[in-house]
Amino acid sequence: MEKIDETFMSFDKPYHQADIVYFGAPFDGTASFKKGAFFGPKAIREDSYGLETYSPYQDQDLETDTKVVDVGDLNFSGMGTEEVLDDINEFIEKIINDDKIPLMVGGEHLVSYPVVKALKENYPDLAVIHYDAHMDLRYDYEGDKLSHATVMRRIYESIDSRSIYQFGIRSGTREEFAFSKEKCHTHLFEVTGSEKLLDILRDRPVYITIDLDVLDPGIFSGTGTQEPGGVTFKELLDSIINLDGLNIVGADIVELAPNLDNSGVSTSCACKVVREMAIILSKSRRRRADG
Amino acid sequence: MEKIDETFMSFDKPYHQADIVYFGAPFDGTASFKKGAFFGPKAIREDSYGLETYSPYQDQDLETDTKVVDVGDLNFSGMGTEEVLDDINEFIEKIINDDKIPLMVGGEHLVSYPVVKALKENYPDLAVIHYDAHMDLRYDYEGDKLSHATVMRRIYESIDSRSIYQFGIRSGTREEFAFSKEKCHTHLFEVTGSEKLLDILRDRPVYITIDLDVLDPGIFSGTGTQEPGGVTFKELLDSIINLDGLNIVGADIVELAPNLDNSGVSTSCACKVVREMAIILSKSRRRRADG
Amino acid sequence: MEKIDETFMSFDKPYHQADIVYFGAPFDGTASFKKGAFFGPKAIREDSYGLETYSPYQDQDLETDTKVVDVGDLNFSGMGTEEVLDDINEFIEKIINDDKIPLMVGGEHLVSYPVVKALKENYPDLAVIHYDAHMDLRYDYEGDKLSHATVMRRIYESIDSRSIYQFGIRSGTREEFAFSKEKCHTHLFEVTGSEKLLDILRDRPVYITIDLDVLDPGIFSGTGTQEPGGVTFKELLDSIINLDGLNIVGADIVELAPNLDNSGVSTSCACKVVREMAIILSKSRRRRADG
Amino acid sequence: MEKIDETFMSFDKPYHQADIVYFGAPFDGTASFKKGAFFGPKAIREDSYGLETYSPYQDQDLETDTKVVDVGDLNFSGMGTEEVLDDINEFIEKIINDDKIPLMVGGEHLVSYPVVKALKENYPDLAVIHYDAHMDLRYDYEGDKLSHATVMRRIYESIDSRSIYQFGIRSGTREEFAFSKEKCHTHLFEVTGSEKLLDILRDRPVYITIDLDVLDPGIFSGTGTQEPGGVTFKELLDSIINLDGLNIVGADIVELAPNLDNSGVSTSCACKVVREMAIILSKSRRRRADG
Amino acid sequence: MEKIDETFMSFDKPYHQADIVYFGAPFDGTASFKKGAFFGPKAIREDSYGLETYSPYQDQDLETDTKVVDVGDLNFSGMGTEEVLDDINEFIEKIINDDKIPLMVGGEHLVSYPVVKALKENYPDLAVIHYDAHMDLRYDYEGDKLSHATVMRRIYESIDSRSIYQFGIRSGTREEFAFSKEKCHTHLFEVTGSEKLLDILRDRPVYITIDLDVLDPGIFSGTGTQEPGGVTFKELLDSIINLDGLNIVGADIVELAPNLDNSGVSTSCACKVVREMAIILSKSRRRRADG
Amino acid sequence: MEKIDETFMSFDKPYHQADIVYFGAPFDGTASFKKGAFFGPKAIREDSYGLETYSPYQDQDLETDTKVVDVGDLNFSGMGTEEVLDDINEFIEKIINDDKIPLMVGGEHLVSYPVVKALKENYPDLAVIHYDAHMDLRYDYEGDKLSHATVMRRIYESIDSRSIYQFGIRSGTREEFAFSKEKCHTHLFEVTGSEKLLDILRDRPVYITIDLDVLDPGIFSGTGTQEPGGVTFKELLDSIINLDGLNIVGADIVELAPNLDNSGVSTSCACKVVREMAIILSKSRRRRADG
Repeated sequence: MEKIDETFMSFDKPYHQADIVYFGAPFDGTASFKKGAFFGPKAIREDSYGLETYSPYQDQDLETDTKVVDVGDLNFSGMGTEEVLDDINEFIEKIINDDKIPLMVGGEHLVSYPVVKALKENYPDLAVIHYDAHMDLRYDYEGDKLSHATVMRRIYESIDSRSIYQFGIRSGTREEFAFSKEKCHTHLFEVTGSEKLLDILRDRPVYITIDLDVLDPGIFSGTGTQEPGGVTFKELLDSIINLDGLNIVGADIVELAPNLDNSGVSTSCACKVVREMAIILSKSRRRRADG
Repeated sequence: MEKIDETFMSFDKPYHQADIVYFGAPFDGTASFKKGAFFGPKAIREDSYGLETYSPYQDQDLETDTKVVDVGDLNFSGMGTEEVLDDINEFIEKIINDDKIPLMVGGEHLVSYPVVKALKENYPDLAVIHYDAHMDLRYDYEGDKLSHATVMRRIYESIDSRSIYQFGIRSGTREEFAFSKEKCHTHLFEVTGSEKLLDILRDRPVYITIDLDVLDPGIFSGTGTQEPGGVTFKELLDSIINLDGLNIVGADIVELAPNLDNSGVSTSCACKVVREMAIILSKSRRRRADG
Repeated sequence: MEKIDETFMSFDKPYHQADIVYFGAPFDGTASFKKGAFFGPKAIREDSYGLETYSPYQDQDLETDTKVVDVGDLNFSGMGTEEVLDDINEFIEKIINDDKIPLMVGGEHLVSYPVVKALKENYPDLAVIHYDAHMDLRYDYEGDKLSHATVMRRIYESIDSRSIYQFGIRSGTREEFAFSKEKCHTHLFEVTGSEKLLDILRDRPVYITIDLDVLDPGIFSGTGTQEPGGVTFKELLDSIINLDGLNIVGADIVELAPNLDNSGVSTSCACKVVREMAIILSKSRRRRADG
Repeated sequence: MEKIDETFMSFDKPYHQADIVYFGAPFDGTASFKKGAFFGPKAIREDSYGLETYSPYQDQDLETDTKVVDVGDLNFSGMGTEEVLDDINEFIEKIINDDKIPLMVGGEHLVSYPVVKALKENYPDLAVIHYDAHMDLRYDYEGDKLSHATVMRRIYESIDSRSIYQFGIRSGTREEFAFSKEKCHTHLFEVTGSEKLLDILRDRPVYITIDLDVLDPGIFSGTGTQEPGGVTFKELLDSIINLDGLNIVGADIVELAPNLDNSGVSTSCACKVVREMAIILSKSRRRRADG
Repeated sequence: MEKIDETFMSFDKPYHQADIVYFGAPFDGTASFKKGAFFGPKAIREDSYGLETYSPYQDQDLETDTKVVDVGDLNFSGMGTEEVLDDINEFIEKIINDDKIPLMVGGEHLVSYPVVKALKENYPDLAVIHYDAHMDLRYDYEGDKLSHATVMRRIYESIDSRSIYQFGIRSGTREEFAFSKEKCHTHLFEVTGSEKLLDILRDRPVYITIDLDVLDPGIFSGTGTQEPGGVTFKELLDSIINLDGLNIVGADIVELAPNLDNSGVSTSCACKVVREMAIILSKSRRRRADG
Repeated sequence: MEKIDETFMSFDKPYHQADIVYFGAPFDGTASFKKGAFFGPKAIREDSYGLETYSPYQDQDLETDTKVVDVGDLNFSGMGTEEVLDDINEFIEKIINDDKIPLMVGGEHLVSYPVVKALKENYPDLAVIHYDAHMDLRYDYEGDKLSHATVMRRIYESIDSRSIYQFGIRSGTREEFAFSKEKCHTHLFEVTGSEKLLDILRDRPVYITIDLDVLDPGIFSGTGTQEPGGVTFKELLDSIINLDGLNIVGADIVELAPNLDNSGVSTSCACKVVREMAIILSKSRRRRADG
């Protein structure tokens, strides 16, 4: 862990008392055109102090209703892609062993892969809910099997068939669309209907991965691959709050590249999604504890 | 009054013939993180020349259907916060004495307070319609009772109980949400339903204060405290045009910080809201004159 | 034709095999306040490589389902406005003679005029579908009859009466609104309802001109005259895809000024509209060939 | 002449009393890569109000020691390159006929050509002093004989041989360097030594053309073709003040593209050069009047 | 004092052990065109961590060779100009009473005035060394006697005649230049020759005020009134290091507006000047202690 | 090698005919604060087309007087730091085996290390000339021995003692300054005096590494660690042209982060240094061939 100057607002519980472990995965090594997801975790922490701790959407307050520890960023200094993924995998295993829930901010989307792999070890029945503008289902990308454009294919391979539930997808190759139609549950263009998963996934452990480019670039331009025609912030918020009730065992929020949005709005969005997700994870955890 | 180089487009009637007095209140003294509301009035004037004088939304034209005088900006040079508020208060009293309606552009939201105070003297039954992303109902903010974050609380104290009607609010402390629930009429998250006020406030003088950050930061990023999940420009426009029919005795449009939005879109929004509001005020005034 | 470094992605068929001719008209000579439409064609080409060739909206792929040739940009070096328009007119005549369909990217809106004039020669019954924030129906603008603000009036004069179908208009003078009411078919503020044109224009050749400022400036700020209250990207996409089924004999996409939007989102929007429009034109052409 | 909102600070003498006519030539039609000289005149006027009227370098004050009229910008609306040049030429003839001295701001460098041509008619012995990073001595540029890259060649052809005195040149083709060596008087890289011209050009009428990109792009980045290794602002100022004493019959300052420098420093430089040049022209004119 | 998140790098000695007190005066209330000096102190602190603690120019290290405490920023919340100045004055009196040396960062230049006034009480023979692009010697500015444009006049009135030594001045009114010639010691345009002050001011207590706009805007564009033709960073550094040997009883560094320079270079300059000045003050203090 | 769209202007000789191999090393993996050297090679290639092929400084033309092949960028996809360095090392060995001279553009400074190591194998007597603002002589940096801040220490260890000749250094720790004083030949602050190396290094093979941050950030702000007080572009150009005459066996130009300088000036500087360096290398090679 790198020393950090500050934590995400209110994520200041002692490690042993926390039930959620928040950390950053500042890796954007497979991006090559517009980069900057490396800077995501730092920007989110700094900007979090402009946010209220209270969520009127869920009537919960980070101060009083969550127990999250921000342990800082993983340090990938000098590492190649595989080493980075191993490092994340190992860190998640530790979190699971400590009986805590991981909440990760990227970094590029590839960092989701080792998290799912580690969780799958513990939760064989794991399902994955995937918000994204892009399929990310390529078998390889420019020859690489480990890429932001292949991450969901790798995740697909590591969990049970037809256990990926996609929302908001609006871009990919014809092959990816055919693949997803056959092998995933895909809601194109929109993020509505997520409340149906409460039934469908009722008995399964669930991982949520949110590539923030699912948002329309009018509100979220700070990302490497802008895709017009996305959803509004309200729609995304509604959709993920609808997931409250599931047994969520981990989540991530990826692909903020704050340097690509001078207005700062993209980072504001990311912060607010982190707040709401921390609350959802906390409620899920409490239910499990209470149950 | 400071000398001004130009006026807002078409707000060029002689003072004695005008029924609406447009002026700027370039004050952002209680902001400390992202500032710039000081520059709002100047930016709005300059940009107004890119706007048509005709509103297809209301089928009215600033040239032929309104009588507004732009008297420039109040000069707060050298003043502390209390002096600034006194200065505005005094200026509003003069406008009221001259039997005209004030239309103010800020500046930070705190400038609304002295306007309401002055109007309340004349209209004891005054109600306030409040568009905002934020409650602004704190009792104090970092020890200060006079702050952009406390302005609605001060306004609350200066008018009759339960006379504030809020729209679009999506951020605040748990205490502010509790306070508003008990003491105000609050429409969270949305600005729909304003047409119902035509009945509710039929017999009362009404002041309208629009903190432009009620808009989603996707369209309005030029403000100090961006809050994703806001309303669209169309929704805001519809909502305020729905207020046409009320007895409106004053209005303000605050919190544009043009320096924080390089694209210029935020200023375009502010200009268009000023145009529509000037038309609404003019129609209200004509009804009063005719009635 | 100027030498071009690259073509729009997949618009690489040989001229004689192509049925659609894509070209740029880099002219912004009548703009005087915020300029930059000159740079539109170049920006669109460069950015097109970030786009997928496959459209999930229409389930078509540029690679396999279209035959488009990008012939580069017309070279207006040294020319005045009239010469530019003549040059475009002549080029369109050649395209028509070669039995191909023109797909033009601007440049400012005035470049649409010579295209319509040339097509009208060949298709006497031509109708024009017009997406725009602005009427563009002035008789003259600051004394000029040839201007981005008069282009639809010139087009009106060159085709049969009441053959213009407008969508999304939200700005103009009172005179323009009166004119359009009497002489055009105008859908104010929204772009919904375009599917009705399938019936209305069933037997007529149709030209489509899209001034991208019909989009809300929250998503499309890179244009000279921003007009808040526009439509979303999804709404525009839906509206133009609804036109699939018409006999479309040409189209243009104008008024992207990429230099006015640092975020790059405006150019992303333009690219995606080009892709969808190329597919619609291709389907129209195939129907004609098959029919 | 277009209506202008404001004049350059203190250039407010009535036309008939002025001895110097200041005007803008907003033309950048032959530029194709990074444009923006069109916006130069407007930016200079607006920014001039941040400048003092007093020059400590020459101990003169624009208010009391110069008689300049700002007549606004020439209106090239709708014109091709040749028409623009004719228009400028004609305007200069009028200024000469009125016995006044032209001081022009560009616009791209090509606008200097018609000024020199007009002056040459009146002053057959005209010499030209040329500050620039670039030779601008190509015979043609991409086939065009009228281009920002050929302007000095056209000027060369229009005046007597070896009557061009160049300073600060640091870029061009091998052919241009050979041409200048044989046919011009060229000071490469530096602007020192201009004081020697007081002797050399003592008896001749002199025109001064300053392409501001002679300055290092560290201080002047707002121009289409940045060329590192330029001179400092002090060096340029010294060099042109050294010309005081010559019989200067006209001058221009070109190639400011204010949109390419967000910091505003380039425009500040241009304003200060305008001030100093107006003073030099005024002194030259007074000497002539007194002589 | 406001709570601060961090201190300027290495300015972390306990107050009672420090001999230099570093603090911020975030006030830009009299500026009205381009503002931002309010943000100076915060930007300097944050950026200081990119600086080495060791100065190769003076072969001293902040860690080992200085004893500075950063006490944060004065809190001017709600205050008018006079109150702000009184607040600074009072704070300086406390520093003097505690036998420490003040090192202030602005803020606009007006904040220097109350510092000099307080020091003058203690050091009746105080001389002031003034680096600036501007005279700042107006009697009043738009009617105000307390302004960034009048600060040196107020300082002049508060100390003995001809005790101001100016460097780098290149802008002002004719009256200011006349005043300075008669009443100050002024080195126009350049900052060379400061070493002569070692003799001239040998026996006097000295205050140094550095308006960073003395630097050329090519290196320092982040300030409200850019004035081309300034000195290089090296020249300024040499000039102030030449003052080492004087009995310096206080210093300030003002007019950084970090928001006006996106490149960040202006803040880098300010940080380095702070480092060198802290070392100079420390050496002066040690000499006094040793002497 | 990755596919490249274009080559650096005129670096288009076939590999087997070239005597200089130009390539990019897009690596910035050890930077963590302000990144972007990854984008250096691409930006330099694109911008090179704005440069003349003719150098008036050396009277040579890239077209006719050099034989350079641009082989594109090394592809470090997925690699950790050590792998990247090995990859570069191996590539340089191939260049040496093919009897060609490497000219590399970075990327961060660490990429120089494997080049020097490979050359040292072939030229046991290798000396290194080092332009930089920073010592880069730390033994480790935050625990890493392989870092942009340690690269010259690693280079020091890999060649003979006292074979590093430094210019322009103005930042580092006290320890680094002590180390360089004892073990290197260091010219602080300035880049003058390089012509003396013609004698000193007459009989030795020489490598030149230019960290462009040796330039003042006024002209070169596009780099991760800005250090005010640097040299001008002219001074750097003079200094490296003075090295013409040495037996230069390789060179690099590193640390351009084009994303950090919106004005584009930094990239213009880099391009011009590449041009001049290619000419110097070509002349050195010709002398060797002729000798």
